[in-house]
Amino acid sequence: MRIVVPAGGIGGARFLRGLKAALGTDASTGPDQATDHQITVIGNTGDDITLFGLRICPDLDTVMYTLGGGINEEQGWGRADETFTVKEELAAYGMKPTWFGLGDRDTATHIVRAQMIAAGYPLSAITEALCDRWRPGVRLLPMTDDQVETHVVIEDERGRRAVHFQEWWIEHRAALPAERIISVGAEDSRPAPGVIEAVKEADLVLLPPSNPVVSVGSILNVPGIRDALVDKTVVGVSPIIGGAPVRGMADACLTAIGVETSAGAVAAHLGSDLLDGWLVDEADAGTEVEGIEVRSRPLYMSDPESTEAIARAALDLALELRGDGGR
Amino acid sequence: MRIVVPAGGIGGARFLRGLKAALGTDASTGPDQATDHQITVIGNTGDDITLFGLRICPDLDTVMYTLGGGINEEQGWGRADETFTVKEELAAYGMKPTWFGLGDRDTATHIVRAQMIAAGYPLSAITEALCDRWRPGVRLLPMTDDQVETHVVIEDERGRRAVHFQEWWIEHRAALPAERIISVGAEDSRPAPGVIEAVKEADLVLLPPSNPVVSVGSILNVPGIRDALVDKTVVGVSPIIGGAPVRGMADACLTAIGVETSAGAVAAHLGSDLLDGWLVDEADAGTEVEGIEVRSRPLYMSDPESTEAIARAALDLALELRGDGGR
Repeated sequence: MRIVVPAGGIGGARFLRGLKAALGTDASTGPDQATDHQITVIGNTGDDITLFGLRICPDLDTVMYTLGGGINEEQGWGRADETFTVKEELAAYGMKPTWFGLGDRDTATHIVRAQMIAAGYPLSAITEALCDRWRPGVRLLPMTDDQVETHVVIEDERGRRAVHFQEWWIEHRAALPAERIISVGAEDSRPAPGVIEAVKEADLVLLPPSNPVVSVGSILNVPGIRDALVDKTVVGVSPIIGGAPVRGMADACLTAIGVETSAGAVAAHLGSDLLDGWLVDEADAGTEVEGIEVRSRPLYMSDPESTEAIARAALDLALELRGDGGR
Repeated sequence: MRIVVPAGGIGGARFLRGLKAALGTDASTGPDQATDHQITVIGNTGDDITLFGLRICPDLDTVMYTLGGGINEEQGWGRADETFTVKEELAAYGMKPTWFGLGDRDTATHIVRAQMIAAGYPLSAITEALCDRWRPGVRLLPMTDDQVETHVVIEDERGRRAVHFQEWWIEHRAALPAERIISVGAEDSRPAPGVIEAVKEADLVLLPPSNPVVSVGSILNVPGIRDALVDKTVVGVSPIIGGAPVRGMADACLTAIGVETSAGAVAAHLGSDLLDGWLVDEADAGTEVEGIEVRSRPLYMSDPESTEAIARAALDLALELRGDGGR
């Protein structure tokens, strides 16, 4: 079975780990192992940022580290057993910004990536090279090889201005109201090599509980990706439970684009042309969205077992909706 | 008093610390503090190398860290309390080379430098910016802002080829005979801003016991520097004691250029037009070099006190030779 998963960072990565478990592939299965199932991840690169001359791809790395066994399990991003010597030394030199959590292990990843960028490699080739080490057991593609960066229009004492998503998200903890969220460069971007082909060949598409605006939304902003996805059976997992994001600050993003923070409103925003099925939490049982099959079940990914069960439920609904009747 | 010191790495840095002590300036004295004495260091950049997209200047950094209180005292290079996480992670990605001792703290220095290079700053401005943090108490100038790299012609199972000095020095421990040592780019290089002016304004010039071939020699290879120095009272400290280098593998370098590994031969190689005085160890008492005033005294820089005494002896000899008769 071929499954495509457009994914953001922590929520996407954890869902993917559950999906691998549900499909019987585990983290030790390299991408070159013959399995019955192939998962292609379309990773969000809208959060990417250049800091200290290094190109940092938080969502791609979170997926790679999580599926490759290198993630800091507690915080959900960054490397396990991480240290922050380089960050502290950069601050000692007066380098800005100081708010980005750049770990030493993580820095090596960015140095490798920066070197390959300088050598002319596209992000898709770089990601593949990095995955040679991590063997995430999925095919990890960036949504695009072009630079698309999410910027957020805010207003503070310095006036109205657009800042990089990371600045708004990390430095300001998304506490400053976002007036607009812009995918800078999206209109002129093209899907990375393999993205459209993977969607076309997919048996089904699963949307993990990633941020619907700046993760899934950024991916859908790359021309061609949404159009390819609407032809497929797509089942999503709501990132909103009982009117609040399961984690992160997706509510601040939804408010910025005028969408209510509710499981139903997010599904309607994604659109019934795109979504065929939508899993909501039991707290949102009774949610109805025209043209979308909504099912309710526990949606907290609190441990590997519950996460696997959620992924299996999404998988089962997708198979049901495409008429296979089961696995 | 204005003193110019062309310096390599460890030996140069330790001599400079002794010189500061002899002059009554210590590590806590910033360059903006008013003192009676000003030391300008012309730092060797021939050992500089670009690795992992970072520009590494081992000798400038050794001087900066040593005089700024950040050096690893035992090994003489690199940062105190250093860790090697980034290096280990780069190796885990299969990055080469693995033989360079790139520490995490040190990496931050190279990231700052790489960023400033990318922004168009010359090495002299970058070095000044880095020294804003370290406050070495001397004016540290690179010998040139141009890229001059020492390469070594060796022959091994892969045939005859030129390798970067660092590869020969660190990876091969200078054990492969060097057929030639080349300052690549030296002919077209220009002294960094301030270098010639500092020499012209200097009351005297002291040569620390740095490698005469790849440290002092590289500096002298930059057109204009040697010519400026010969007009000055120059006193050097022999890096060779009893026919062997005090530290490092300078003998391998001397052999490559056909100079005997002896205190006298090194002085003769540097030239009586350049050198006015030459300090040799007691083991080399009786050494005579035509046109150069040779004095013998203990030359092992075994602790701060002995190092200070050596610097004071060099200083005193220079003052004597220029006719001041003392301090």
